[in-house]
Amino acid sequence: MMIKAGIVGGTGYTGVELLRLLAGHSGVELTVITSRGEKGLKVSDLFPNLRGRVNLAFVEPDEATLQGCDVVFFATPNGTAMKSVPALLSAGVKVIDLAADFRLRHSAEWEQWYGMPHSCPELLAEAVYGLPEINREAIRNARLVANPGCYPTAVQLGFLPLLEAGVIDPQSLIADAKSGVSGAGRKAEVGILLAEAGDNFKAYGVAGHRHWPEIRQGLSAVAGGPVALIFVPHLTPMIRGIHATLYATLTDPDADLQALFERRYAAEDFVDVLPPKSHPETRSVRGVNQCRLAIHRPQHGKTAVVLSVIDNLVKGAAGQAIQNMNLMFGLPEAAGLEGIALLP
Amino acid sequence: MMIKAGIVGGTGYTGVELLRLLAGHSGVELTVITSRGEKGLKVSDLFPNLRGRVNLAFVEPDEATLQGCDVVFFATPNGTAMKSVPALLSAGVKVIDLAADFRLRHSAEWEQWYGMPHSCPELLAEAVYGLPEINREAIRNARLVANPGCYPTAVQLGFLPLLEAGVIDPQSLIADAKSGVSGAGRKAEVGILLAEAGDNFKAYGVAGHRHWPEIRQGLSAVAGGPVALIFVPHLTPMIRGIHATLYATLTDPDADLQALFERRYAAEDFVDVLPPKSHPETRSVRGVNQCRLAIHRPQHGKTAVVLSVIDNLVKGAAGQAIQNMNLMFGLPEAAGLEGIALLP
Amino acid sequence: MMIKAGIVGGTGYTGVELLRLLAGHSGVELTVITSRGEKGLKVSDLFPNLRGRVNLAFVEPDEATLQGCDVVFFATPNGTAMKSVPALLSAGVKVIDLAADFRLRHSAEWEQWYGMPHSCPELLAEAVYGLPEINREAIRNARLVANPGCYPTAVQLGFLPLLEAGVIDPQSLIADAKSGVSGAGRKAEVGILLAEAGDNFKAYGVAGHRHWPEIRQGLSAVAGGPVALIFVPHLTPMIRGIHATLYATLTDPDADLQALFERRYAAEDFVDVLPPKSHPETRSVRGVNQCRLAIHRPQHGKTAVVLSVIDNLVKGAAGQAIQNMNLMFGLPEAAGLEGIALLP
Amino acid sequence: MMIKAGIVGGTGYTGVELLRLLAGHSGVELTVITSRGEKGLKVSDLFPNLRGRVNLAFVEPDEATLQGCDVVFFATPNGTAMKSVPALLSAGVKVIDLAADFRLRHSAEWEQWYGMPHSCPELLAEAVYGLPEINREAIRNARLVANPGCYPTAVQLGFLPLLEAGVIDPQSLIADAKSGVSGAGRKAEVGILLAEAGDNFKAYGVAGHRHWPEIRQGLSAVAGGPVALIFVPHLTPMIRGIHATLYATLTDPDADLQALFERRYAAEDFVDVLPPKSHPETRSVRGVNQCRLAIHRPQHGKTAVVLSVIDNLVKGAAGQAIQNMNLMFGLPEAAGLEGIALLP
Repeated sequence: MMIKAGIVGGTGYTGVELLRLLAGHSGVELTVITSRGEKGLKVSDLFPNLRGRVNLAFVEPDEATLQGCDVVFFATPNGTAMKSVPALLSAGVKVIDLAADFRLRHSAEWEQWYGMPHSCPELLAEAVYGLPEINREAIRNARLVANPGCYPTAVQLGFLPLLEAGVIDPQSLIADAKSGVSGAGRKAEVGILLAEAGDNFKAYGVAGHRHWPEIRQGLSAVAGGPVALIFVPHLTPMIRGIHATLYATLTDPDADLQALFERRYAAEDFVDVLPPKSHPETRSVRGVNQCRLAIHRPQHGKTAVVLSVIDNLVKGAAGQAIQNMNLMFGLPEAAGLEGIALLP
Repeated sequence: MMIKAGIVGGTGYTGVELLRLLAGHSGVELTVITSRGEKGLKVSDLFPNLRGRVNLAFVEPDEATLQGCDVVFFATPNGTAMKSVPALLSAGVKVIDLAADFRLRHSAEWEQWYGMPHSCPELLAEAVYGLPEINREAIRNARLVANPGCYPTAVQLGFLPLLEAGVIDPQSLIADAKSGVSGAGRKAEVGILLAEAGDNFKAYGVAGHRHWPEIRQGLSAVAGGPVALIFVPHLTPMIRGIHATLYATLTDPDADLQALFERRYAAEDFVDVLPPKSHPETRSVRGVNQCRLAIHRPQHGKTAVVLSVIDNLVKGAAGQAIQNMNLMFGLPEAAGLEGIALLP
Repeated sequence: MMIKAGIVGGTGYTGVELLRLLAGHSGVELTVITSRGEKGLKVSDLFPNLRGRVNLAFVEPDEATLQGCDVVFFATPNGTAMKSVPALLSAGVKVIDLAADFRLRHSAEWEQWYGMPHSCPELLAEAVYGLPEINREAIRNARLVANPGCYPTAVQLGFLPLLEAGVIDPQSLIADAKSGVSGAGRKAEVGILLAEAGDNFKAYGVAGHRHWPEIRQGLSAVAGGPVALIFVPHLTPMIRGIHATLYATLTDPDADLQALFERRYAAEDFVDVLPPKSHPETRSVRGVNQCRLAIHRPQHGKTAVVLSVIDNLVKGAAGQAIQNMNLMFGLPEAAGLEGIALLP
Repeated sequence: MMIKAGIVGGTGYTGVELLRLLAGHSGVELTVITSRGEKGLKVSDLFPNLRGRVNLAFVEPDEATLQGCDVVFFATPNGTAMKSVPALLSAGVKVIDLAADFRLRHSAEWEQWYGMPHSCPELLAEAVYGLPEINREAIRNARLVANPGCYPTAVQLGFLPLLEAGVIDPQSLIADAKSGVSGAGRKAEVGILLAEAGDNFKAYGVAGHRHWPEIRQGLSAVAGGPVALIFVPHLTPMIRGIHATLYATLTDPDADLQALFERRYAAEDFVDVLPPKSHPETRSVRGVNQCRLAIHRPQHGKTAVVLSVIDNLVKGAAGQAIQNMNLMFGLPEAAGLEGIALLP
């Protein structure tokens, strides 16, 4: 039996990536894709890579149609999903929100960072944060999954083994993260034009980025108490990919960090710990649902350095959403996620 | 029953692309990959995108091992395959050469353009030029396929319908082609460094490029007589992709060019004729075995303009090689070539 | 005595390039720069490369202030300059329009291509087309200069020697042109995002581009009769630079094309004819007011191929505007244009 | 009177950048440029941006010719300058070495990091480290200047005010640095091909990079005792530019960091402290001898974050070398360094 899937808001990069991956997923039938702005347009006219593979056209969002789905993905701006989710859940539809509406557990904190009231704070406790490497069992039973942000995925997977093992000082965390421009979305903005962001590198949001509370919340839960985190995102002149360089002060000078990482992720399909002295490249995960990690300890000193790469649109968004869907519907976790990264 | 496939010379970009595609091909078992320079190295140490998917290591080329294969792909520099091919054919192994050794029918012309003697000119008549859209039946029965060059694929598929229909003057052909830098191979050369070829555009080889006689030979066969062709290749600052812009003088002012193209390629899985007024983008075929075409007639004048895009490493090399293999072994022509282009 | 210069509409790429060049011009005092949208903002807050070098802030356009200038540059959208130019000319101010308002001689043709009525068609006859290599004397005496478009500069300089010498068929002109994305301006448009235009190549406007009538008008004047021109522009993933590849059928098989080009441009500071067999690179003119040309005749056949590169923002816009200003005010033509291209 | 300058080893990126800047320096006469590999070749044939501006050809290195110079720049691989410098100094020629031969004060440490014996360790004490913002007076009187590395310039200028003022813990320094690929030089290496380094991001040298001891030596001198430094360099897909993101633990919670930076660099022409909350872009210094800095304190916490950008080939190499030359010869420090960054 095929899972009937709908996508709300399919004109952005997470939307097209969901389409690409779902079109190749043998257990899913894509039944509806909505867009207010592009209704009537054939999906493959907007995204020509889908010609011959996706024959749907965008339709106006419509409650009845969406309620006929088994699962609905929201690839919408923040603040959109929360308006439709309660009715969908009531109708027995499972929901995976790729935006941020259900990522923070406390509505006050959410409202502070996202600058609007939350319309269904009562669902925040039920929503499961969709990082399978931490929450696999909860995801299997979830009705509502908050798909993690791209930076939070790369950063949390990198710090996770160290915090769980208690070998670093949770007050010493620094995440220096670099993202390709697709992370900013398919939006008409001057700052991400090729003529602006090309051949250029800059930090942004040093004073505060919305992914900071999300990462801090996740890592604090792992550490069993509040962590202190410095998070500096940067824009790098490439299309896809996040590279997070993580720093923390070691509290256990004898820990075998390489073994720790390998053990932690031995059973994970989508986290790959590289051999010692490795430097993962973002292109090694281009287009695939994979996080590659390397752990270093420069000059055998007091600082652990983790290098973590993902494709922001796959393990950082659409791929992880499908991984979550697979768990929620009892499919093999890797179904539809078998592609190999495009290199070069 | 699985086809046993070997790759000779797998350290370049066509090599890694063959590996990526064959690793996902359910009818093929990759049994050997050779490299003199990298023998002993795990393939996935050179190409980390293949970690967990290709477990072979490079081995020294060895006749006996290769003769145990059903098919051998040569992804070697020009002049290498011709030394091994006769023995392989004698041993009953089918061969697909991704280099140029068997592309030209006349050894004198080959020797002029490639600057070395040909070691088995007697095979040139038998070798089938592996452009399925022209030679499908011959490929099915071939022992030896000369896989076309990247530019020749894009250019020939674009001119083909016009020449077959006799609606253009075969003495008026101009092909202005632009390639990403992966077309130059994975070679340590200053001219294709990011710091040289990045943010830069230039023509090269205007006086004469090796793909010129190959294109001319193919188009002359279609036209039924020698064509005159101007071919100007350019290097564009991207990784994958060829865009060929083709010009020819119309001899039939009433021809319905759009219908002509649609009819010619209606049954082709890997050639996609876009609607009128389209401008195909190279990224729409990134990573896939597809040629997308658009036909224009500016100001309804005497000149036809064809826009043709391919991924130089897929429809221009490794993907087409697999399409040829599928034909040679009676598999569905699209087996292993079902991927969707990565966009963005 | 310093020339008092004003800029109307200084927030785009031609604006910032004018500022960069004028700030280094010892004969010019920049007195005012206007922008409705950014009034009050310091120029160097928008363009940090100008910190410490340009201390002006954007002001609301104001007739009196502009009339106090010796020369006013319009770096505005099409259709803006024509509204202010008559009053400025009446006040004795010279005007250089970097937009298209005064480029076409016939208002009907202008209105057809630009989709609006022309508000001062009576000035079209007086306006001098600012390509100094053709119109130097007229520019010296002009009150109003229509600064050429970027493609038209690259294409006209390439065809000029051939048409003047009468060695090509004026009915056979093809211009295959490739531009970096800064040519599309500093506009919030999805199509020129790094995530869209990066690692991608496409043609656009094949059915008709506004630079086509401009080029045709210029070349027809040179040829002494209407030329037939096919013009296909392409978007290439780089920031600055145009590469025009030009094709024409030779009518004089004995013409010494190299000598023809060298002679034609021997006295020109800003046109550089490369040695035989050269392939000019766009980066060789990055940031400078220079056109570099090479002339080829592949296989010694009937087709001439010209390769022409400029920086679209300098010789294709702001640099040429300053060259025109120098001529209009009797300064050395190269004043302020002495920079050397940035390579790599 | 013009300074007679020679360049040894002018075929790399620091070489061409020296040429570009010296060709525009009114106080310098470029008399000789050497290259073993390219002798006889016109400089402008290798670097077409210099056509019409530099008329020299490369010559074989020759002691007598170099001894006729007032100053010789070495733009050579490490280990080359040290062989010629003693004789040049004896002949009264001043030397600026853009390689690393004289950057470290202790020959044992140098030999450990550079893997060869030092041929004139007796000069290490005399050589002045050419960072004018620290060593201006010593540079004025120097015969031999060791021009700093690119990363060391960006990192030291960023940490300098904090260490001098004693407001950070010198045991807590982290430098996360990102470089464009021109920093790797004009070398035929696979790893820096456009097809490898383009659309890709990675760290490298985490276990140990030669710039680490150089930075540590410089910062330790400023701090008055050994500092602990983690230094992680990354390769980013752009041509020019370094962005260093610096982290340190504050020891003085009341320090006004913005004021501290502004005061420290108030008199410096080539260090620009941006307003609070700024994010400097590498393109804002493209082609110019400038370091732009911003200082942050996220969440008003215990960690200072400094953002520091330079052009690795200018303030990180050739521009700083000319700044040093100006000081050594009593010229205005900014002579020949007046250019404005190219943006976009």
